[in-house]
Amino acid sequence: MKKKSYYPSNVYLNGEIVRAEAAKISVFDRGFIFGDGVYEVMACIKGHFFYKQAHMDRLKRSMAAIGLQADVRVLEAAIPGLLQESGLKGKDCLLYIQVTRGMAPRQHSYPVGTRPTVMMYAWPKVLPDQNPNPVPVVLREDFRWSRCDIKMTSLLGNVMANQNAAEQGCYETIFERAGIITEASHSNVFFVKEGVVYTHPADHHILDGITRQVVLELCEKLEIDVHLQGIPAVDIFDMDEAFLTGTSTQITPINSIDGRELHTYQQGPVTQKLQQAFSGVKNSL
Amino acid sequence: MKKKSYYPSNVYLNGEIVRAEAAKISVFDRGFIFGDGVYEVMACIKGHFFYKQAHMDRLKRSMAAIGLQADVRVLEAAIPGLLQESGLKGKDCLLYIQVTRGMAPRQHSYPVGTRPTVMMYAWPKVLPDQNPNPVPVVLREDFRWSRCDIKMTSLLGNVMANQNAAEQGCYETIFERAGIITEASHSNVFFVKEGVVYTHPADHHILDGITRQVVLELCEKLEIDVHLQGIPAVDIFDMDEAFLTGTSTQITPINSIDGRELHTYQQGPVTQKLQQAFSGVKNSL
Repeated sequence: MKKKSYYPSNVYLNGEIVRAEAAKISVFDRGFIFGDGVYEVMACIKGHFFYKQAHMDRLKRSMAAIGLQADVRVLEAAIPGLLQESGLKGKDCLLYIQVTRGMAPRQHSYPVGTRPTVMMYAWPKVLPDQNPNPVPVVLREDFRWSRCDIKMTSLLGNVMANQNAAEQGCYETIFERAGIITEASHSNVFFVKEGVVYTHPADHHILDGITRQVVLELCEKLEIDVHLQGIPAVDIFDMDEAFLTGTSTQITPINSIDGRELHTYQQGPVTQKLQQAFSGVKNSL
Repeated sequence: MKKKSYYPSNVYLNGEIVRAEAAKISVFDRGFIFGDGVYEVMACIKGHFFYKQAHMDRLKRSMAAIGLQADVRVLEAAIPGLLQESGLKGKDCLLYIQVTRGMAPRQHSYPVGTRPTVMMYAWPKVLPDQNPNPVPVVLREDFRWSRCDIKMTSLLGNVMANQNAAEQGCYETIFERAGIITEASHSNVFFVKEGVVYTHPADHHILDGITRQVVLELCEKLEIDVHLQGIPAVDIFDMDEAFLTGTSTQITPINSIDGRELHTYQQGPVTQKLQQAFSGVKNSL
């Protein structure tokens, strides 16, 4: 299940907006040598960024976690110009932001006084009002590090896991760590059983997705019970509903895991209720 | 304990040798976006690469592990020209080799038909005949992924661990996983107790260092007993000797862990014997 991707027209790179093909960095950038960086992806819907402050706050937390200092206000201020140059002003799009530690001769420990490399680009993307199609996923052991709460660019583990899914015609790989479902390679995982919503608590083993947070808020508003609790992998086929959340994934129902139908519902009532409420949040922007 | 590092004069990049400041890649290189690449570091001593074939074989294994295809013979053939251009022909130096999946619009799963980005550079480095000075290290939980056998560029975990050591004036962080010492952030760890050498087996939790392999061969030659067995973290202060191995670390004795003197020897007899034998191997090149 390969998703189509495109290059953007323009890239913001360290204060300048350049054509995508001219956006180049030194091979000595620590983002290239060590995966020493962090990132965010935000959706812009009808000219408004969805939960922008939450994304910016998380970017700051990711940077702080790896001792990287960059002025988030400067990059935030550059976003309107980038959208304008990219022909996306007022249009639906996704924005990618990446901050790496910058250029330095190779040594593992952080160099002193480097200028972080800040890169952003946006590309047109109209997200469906609600993601209608349930997707198949595969399950595998969570072999990634124990700081999945940091949204970093050292993503080879996630890349390998997502490739594993794609090769089996699936959208995602969901992970189990010590027998408990944590999250997926680029999305969070929720289950529903007898009207109660379950998802892994936001500890070091998952990325606390913004869409995950919105869904938890919506559960509260809709008076749906939530247990912040990872579901044992042995119990997943006993669940009534399951869905993924993420910035472009939004709320996407899961219909099978490792080729086995997950539940009796293709798109369960709680999932549908949350999708409708999520759509309402977007439309109220 | 910051090590001094320098930029090289020249860089080999996708078939061309350019000045270091002109060595640039696209921001869409998956090495920059995802840490989607592998690498090697080799020492050249008196004009000969130390265990070159072993490094090249490991590079091929790392690439295979992440489904990356590049012709290692092509890059190998380019090394003499790079050394010549860098003014390092016949000189002692270190060579860095990095292969990333190349440029593609961002999506986690592997894109089809990208051209890998191959980058190499060398810089002058005369390694001491034997590393004389014992170094202090710190100990922390191994929070990295479970495929440490792949020599990949998604190294943020190793970077953070090495930074942790540097901030405490130490050379390395050694890791414990589930109470067992695995390896260090960019080197392998050995212990000696009553004449027996202990090191973690080469499973998915360590990088099977070339110097580690040479030391194990030397143990066999010197009739030193080896147990391929990780030492419990609670037992490290009962060990007689401890040392690190690595391409530039060579064989370096450890004298303290977390500020506590490790053993009665600054540089134990088994460590010394191995250092002398290692020096002999280098001098026989």
